[in-house]
Amino acid sequence: MDFDNLLGFIAATITTAAFIPQTYRSITTRDLSGISLGMYATFTFGIILWIIYGILIGSGPILVANIITFVLSATILYLKIQHLMAHRQGDQNKANHHE
Amino acid sequence: MDFDNLLGFIAATITTAAFIPQTYRSITTRDLSGISLGMYATFTFGIILWIIYGILIGSGPILVANIITFVLSATILYLKIQHLMAHRQGDQNKANHHE
Repeated sequence: MDFDNLLGFIAATITTAAFIPQTYRSITTRDLSGISLGMYATFTFGIILWIIYGILIGSGPILVANIITFVLSATILYLKIQHLMAHRQGDQNKANHHE
Repeated sequence: MDFDNLLGFIAATITTAAFIPQTYRSITTRDLSGISLGMYATFTFGIILWIIYGILIGSGPILVANIITFVLSATILYLKIQHLMAHRQGDQNKANHHE
């Protein structure tokens, strides 16, 4: 592996691994209010395209990196949707109490 | 441009653009508590490596996509550090009041 490829491999590993602390924080704190639904919906969709791209060009590293990123990104997206639905539920309960 | 390259280009555009709503949300709400410092510190560093990689292999698309992502990611990182420092300041003020 030459230097360019090694650098690309390290860069891909770091930008993939970066999602681990965010996923961990979101799971443990359930503090999702500052997390953008738009980001994680768009990002998770984009990663699916990267996975298809990895399959089409037969690139193992692109495939593996993006499958890992997909799991992390989809987890944050799921927690955000759960957070939004819990708040909507909360608002409805509040509205019912005012009836 | 063949289909594979077009798909890769679309995937790169989407995963880059995904950071726009998060940056917008973080700027407008200043709700940074759920944002992971570890993610944005690691991610911003990884993007710098992607920029160097783009320069070394002479890839315009990789360079442009990662410069845009760098600006967005570094902005969120800056807001998160500012948030942490404001809270540390707040804690110190509280401690002083208890003296």
